[in-house]
Amino acid sequence: MTTPAHLTPVPLERAYRLLNHGPTVLVSSAHQGRHNVMAAAWACPLDYAPPKVTVVIDKATYTRALVEGSGRFVLNVPARALAAQTVGVGSDSARDVPDKLHKHGVQTFAVDATPVPLVQGCVAWLACTVIPEPHNQQAYDLFIGEVTAAWADERVFSAGRWHFEDAPDELRTLHYVAGGQFYATGASVRAGD
Amino acid sequence: MTTPAHLTPVPLERAYRLLNHGPTVLVSSAHQGRHNVMAAAWACPLDYAPPKVTVVIDKATYTRALVEGSGRFVLNVPARALAAQTVGVGSDSARDVPDKLHKHGVQTFAVDATPVPLVQGCVAWLACTVIPEPHNQQAYDLFIGEVTAAWADERVFSAGRWHFEDAPDELRTLHYVAGGQFYATGASVRAGD
Repeated sequence: MTTPAHLTPVPLERAYRLLNHGPTVLVSSAHQGRHNVMAAAWACPLDYAPPKVTVVIDKATYTRALVEGSGRFVLNVPARALAAQTVGVGSDSARDVPDKLHKHGVQTFAVDATPVPLVQGCVAWLACTVIPEPHNQQAYDLFIGEVTAAWADERVFSAGRWHFEDAPDELRTLHYVAGGQFYATGASVRAGD
Repeated sequence: MTTPAHLTPVPLERAYRLLNHGPTVLVSSAHQGRHNVMAAAWACPLDYAPPKVTVVIDKATYTRALVEGSGRFVLNVPARALAAQTVGVGSDSARDVPDKLHKHGVQTFAVDATPVPLVQGCVAWLACTVIPEPHNQQAYDLFIGEVTAAWADERVFSAGRWHFEDAPDELRTLHYVAGGQFYATGASVRAGD
């Protein structure tokens, strides 16, 4: 698949801002010729520089073995237009539905030297290397990753900042609630308003 | 201070939903007669039952010693009307501005047997007990808490679900970007739409 036309690199010291507003993410992973994409509402920045993130990856997921095997994952931030696909890959496990990406119309692309596929239709991507913390992983399903590269869709993120208000609503990010319902990222609010 | 009129208990098995959409929080804490409130964009659910959360609390904060001393904190989810106060308590440290809560007009109240004050004008509250993880705390400033009680403003959260669309925009939650800018929680999106 081809690289999205609007993909632009994000400086590492600004990468935390891609997750700072708390969007739901898609976790992509690859290992030994297998790859997968799952949804995760529980991802969060952990540090600025070098940027780190946390993400919860349940032991029951197919993704878990790929991330533990390769030591890598990508957090993809889906736009509103990807709501159905996000619920789809979050509901079906590749353990039970081996062709779940095809079933839900999820398409990926490769970029630079990143060995993990990125998800088309997202508006931000953070390529991460696992910082091994076996106790966290075993006790809490909690993974810590260092962000090694990041990109965004320049129509909604540029100069280190989101600007959803300049683009179609379909490019807004999503915040998962439950039962197939999200809230889209809404109005810009300044503290002085 | 009096308890907010619309405060209602949230069953523990639904408490994760108060944070699932990724809002910015205020962390309140108390220890040995001192108390404080700081802002944190980096808070996240960690588990469903018993509910657990993660939150990043920097070593430089006044809050850090109170949380480590008491083993408790409350995550308060501010509504849009509290945007200025959220930036205020997130910018000033009680180390330098001892009366920062008064300066920024932040008011608290007590509820039940919870020894940590809750913040007025918020729309959800999660009372947490620290699960000690010294390595995470020292290496990453990462705290894990078990949620022991939760409440929400019934005008925007009831029957285990947010329903911002039924209430004034001032009650929507906030997602921090940078430089005093937030996005409010926006439109409801269903996967089938």
